[in-house]
Formats: sequence, C-alpha cells, structure tokens
Amino acid sequence: MSLDLATIRVAHDRIRPFIKRTPVLTNEAVDAQAGAAVFFKCENLQAAGAFKSRGACNAVFSLTDAEAALGVVTHSSGNHAAALARAAQLRGIAAHIVMPVGAPQSKVRNVESYGGLITYCESSLAAREFACAAIAARTGAALVHPFDDLRVIAGQGTATLELLEEQPDLDFILCPVGGGGLLSGTAVAAKTVKSGIRVIGVEPALADDVAQSFRAGRRISIPTPATIADGLRTNCTGEHNLPLIQRYVDDVVTVSEAAIVAAMRELWEKLHVIVEPSAAVPYAALREGRLPPARRIGIILSGGNADLTALPWLKP
Amino acid sequence: MSLDLATIRVAHDRIRPFIKRTPVLTNEAVDAQAGAAVFFKCENLQAAGAFKSRGACNAVFSLTDAEAALGVVTHSSGNHAAALARAAQLRGIAAHIVMPVGAPQSKVRNVESYGGLITYCESSLAAREFACAAIAARTGAALVHPFDDLRVIAGQGTATLELLEEQPDLDFILCPVGGGGLLSGTAVAAKTVKSGIRVIGVEPALADDVAQSFRAGRRISIPTPATIADGLRTNCTGEHNLPLIQRYVDDVVTVSEAAIVAAMRELWEKLHVIVEPSAAVPYAALREGRLPPARRIGIILSGGNADLTALPWLKP
Repeated sequence: MSLDLATIRVAHDRIRPFIKRTPVLTNEAVDAQAGAAVFFKCENLQAAGAFKSRGACNAVFSLTDAEAALGVVTHSSGNHAAALARAAQLRGIAAHIVMPVGAPQSKVRNVESYGGLITYCESSLAAREFACAAIAARTGAALVHPFDDLRVIAGQGTATLELLEEQPDLDFILCPVGGGGLLSGTAVAAKTVKSGIRVIGVEPALADDVAQSFRAGRRISIPTPATIADGLRTNCTGEHNLPLIQRYVDDVVTVSEAAIVAAMRELWEKLHVIVEPSAAVPYAALREGRLPPARRIGIILSGGNADLTALPWLKP
Repeated sequence: MSLDLATIRVAHDRIRPFIKRTPVLTNEAVDAQAGAAVFFKCENLQAAGAFKSRGACNAVFSLTDAEAALGVVTHSSGNHAAALARAAQLRGIAAHIVMPVGAPQSKVRNVESYGGLITYCESSLAAREFACAAIAARTGAALVHPFDDLRVIAGQGTATLELLEEQPDLDFILCPVGGGGLLSGTAVAAKTVKSGIRVIGVEPALADDVAQSFRAGRRISIPTPATIADGLRTNCTGEHNLPLIQRYVDDVVTVSEAAIVAAMRELWEKLHVIVEPSAAVPYAALREGRLPPARRIGIILSGGNADLTALPWLKP
C-alpha cells in the first residue's frame, strides 16, 4: 500500500473535529530579509503543541471499535507520545507510552496530562521496541509508530492541504526531518495537489540520516544524534517513508547547530511564537541561504514544546 | 467629540491594508482550568508586535496630505513608538520619537528598524512632553499621543470588532490597562456591538491609576509604577479615556506581580505564543479567580515584545 491524495483527504475529514485549523503567519521583517514572501504554517499552535496530533488522531480514529477497545501503544518521549495520549483520550481508549528512564519531567507530565499510561525502559532502541512489543502482546494494543506508519504519514500530510488551500501559489515548502513522517506526508500532499511545487526537507547536520538515505537510495542508520533539535534525534527513517521521500521530495539539506539556535531566536523575536528547536530547522536553511531562489515559500513550524527554563541563547 | 461604533468601523476600513487580521486562539488546557471557553485575540502577533499598530495607523492615515507632509511626533519608549514609526514609514512621512535616555536597546532598535527619528531626553514626563512640544513647534509635526487621542482609541477598538465577528457570543472581554487607550476603544466597540457584554479592564496592583480613577470619577495620577508590565507604567489615564471608561467599562480589577509572571509563563507554555508581561495581565485575573463566572470569555493579548534574555521566571 502506498499513499495518495485521496487518502490524505479522507484523513483530513476524519481528524477535523479533533485538531485545530492552525493559522498561517507572515512577517514583514522576515520577508524583507529573505527577499521572498514566507508563509509559516503554525503547527506549533496545534493541539498538544505539534503536528503530531494530526497523525496520531488519524491512526486512532482509523481503528475499528474492536481494535480500539484494546488500546494503542507507542514508544516516544516527545510530541508523538503526548499527541497519541490525547487522541486516545478523545476516543476513550488506553494509550500505553514507552518512555526511556530519565525522560524530561515536562514530557512525562505532558503525557500524563492526557491520561497516557507510561512504561519506563532503558533508552536503547532495542529496549524500547521490546517494551512496546511486550505491551502489545499482553494487551492487544495497536502499535502506532511515530513515523513509519501510513495512517500517521497521511495525517501529517493534512497540514499541507490547509497551507495550500490558503496559499496555493507557493514555489516550495520546507519542513523539518526526523524520521520522515512529516516530510513524506508533506511531499505526497504538496506534489499531488500542485505538480510544479518543490518540497525540501531540512535536517540537522548532526542528524543527517535521511539526507544520507535520500542520496544513497537505501535506509542508512546513524548513532543517536546529539542535535539540540530533540524532535529530530532519530537513527533511521522508516520503511514506508523512504520510498515516498525518494519519489516526491526534491532535496534534503542540512544545517548547523548554531544556525538552528539563531533561527529559533529570530522566530521568537520576530514572529512572537514559541517554536521548539526542531521547528526552527527549516527557517535556519532559509536564513543561511541554503535554498534556491523563490518568490513564495511555505514553512511548516512543526512544534512549540520548548523548554522555557533553558533557552539555548542564554547558555554559558 | 466622543466616539461611536461608526467611527471605529471607519477606522477599521482605513487601517485594514496596513495591519494583520490576527488569529483568535483557543486552548483545551486553559478552558479546562478556567471552566469556560476562552478566546485569545492575538495582538501579540500584530504588525510590530502589538495592538498599537491599529491606533497608530488610524492616526497617521487620518491626516490630510498637508498635515502628513510635516510628519508625526510622540513620546514613548515602547510599542506605540515602534507602531507609529512603522505607520509613518508606510505613509512615507517622518516619525519623531522622543525616548528617555537609557531606554532598552531592543526598543531603540525596533524604532530605528522602521526609520523612526529618535530624540533622547530625561525620563520625567515633563521632559518628554517638553521635547515633544519643541519638535512639534520646530517641524509642524502632528502629535500622536499614545492613548489620549480619539483616532488612536478608535484604532485600538478595531481588535474587538474582529474578535466579535468571529466570536459574537462572548459574556465578557478582558483587556490590560495602561493609559486606557485599548480599554476605552475596546469598551466602546464591545458595548455598541453587543449591549449585554461586560468589559473588564485589568491593571497591575502596582499601577492602579485607572482603577482608582474609575472609582473616584476623576483622573488620579500616581508616581511612575514599578510593575514588571512595562507597557502599563503610566501615571494617569487621559482626558478622552476616562469618560469613555466610566460610561462603557463594567469594572477595573487589579492583579499582583507574582500573578502576572505566573500567567505569562502559562501562556507561553500552553498557548505557545510569546506575550510580554503587560499582555499577561488579563489572564492573570482569570487565573486568580478575580472575575465573575462566565461561559465564554474574550481576552486581548496586547503585545509580544518580551525581553528574550531575561525571562522573569528565571530570575534569581
């Protein structure tokens, strides 16, 4: 099974009651600096603070009643965990969330606030997958992978449907790349709505597994990256994601840690919204002149769950 | 001359090309905590980062060509200064901005970025008014007072027209009170659009000149307040403002400094937008249970120009 526009439209209809129609913001100073009109799709203002609510809601509300009754399970310490817990709460089912020991308290509280049932494990990928599989075996809960899941990818693509409804004349769309769920959904939606548009993924240079995989044509795994963009610390893109990325994405570019911090600060200062480091990654590429010239640029601001007690530009 | 709805509608038509239609945001966690549906009108996402762009644009674009050719002048170190400089730049005229020596560099850069012509003076109100009058006498520039000006008040009222277009069924509207420009414009707009609505101004307890004046029925002046809400450090409301406030406002309540900081942090964390301390003042009143019960509440988030290097919850 692959993914097409019709599936993304069905996902959009399915999740509409459970997500926000997020605003598209513009900024005079950003436009002047970029020499282009830039449209920020504010998924940082999405329910639970990230685009992840789209994919999680689509997965949860795609389940049959019999499947749903057994609950859902995932391993994530970030925005997908909170989004899945919220989606499950909205459907009135259990969400089992496997988190590594030592996950930040703010993330734990976030999941708990939506009634998520947390299981702690060691932080290795193997330990997390094992804990997930054990819960699934014991409870029958359906696995909802953070990115390697076509229901999740279709949900993430719905942000681009909304963006292109409001701004149909974009030259390209930028989005951050972690596991590639947002990028693959964005690319399918954008290219099938508007064939001439370019879609560019932006990744931290320290976490360039998708850039490597995109060029190599096969999934390349890297050690857990140390980037400040904590939402993009994935080791390897998914089986469902890479074929979609190779077919629909024009390029994957990378940016430095310093560029991410500078972009994040500029978005806070100029746009007056809170973006987490991961969400600043595409704007970092624009700011650094890493992109081809364009008149009209769409950027998906992926999430707003930043740590408000440790601003990166204040660190010694 | 007083102020009516027709004048505010004319102002809205006049300024529409020069301002943003700001989004109205909602938040599940805020609503659950408040026990009401809360609608945040995000003037922190307005051009130049504050509602002040509305009043400044209305004043500047109300001038005849002959008046405009001589420029505009004001004394302000804050959002009105930047908004007036921006409005003047859009009309292609000079904006003379009187600022106190020692004004924060971020505010100076903001005014300069819009081409404002800065004159420094001592920080007393008398010195600022004298410098303003001297510039007006020398250049013929038109004074645009930050709040005691009906063109400015009418402009500030346009935010409420937009809010009530989207959410006509509000029980009350809250806004912060400094000099009373936003409050008087909000109150005239709200009460003339929807007679049953209640309008409540919220002021820092340390800067309660309008609360005092409201109860006394005359303008009461206080020493320059030390509140963290730097946009609300006015000594006394205006001649045009108090009669409107007395006629149209239901109450003016006050909040503590600690409540302002807690409200600001909660808005950053939950709503994922940046509000400056002044903009958090109304939500502080709601959070502290200082308001009568309601089902649907509108709050004007007045501005987003916070100092990103000195977050108040990180201070020792």
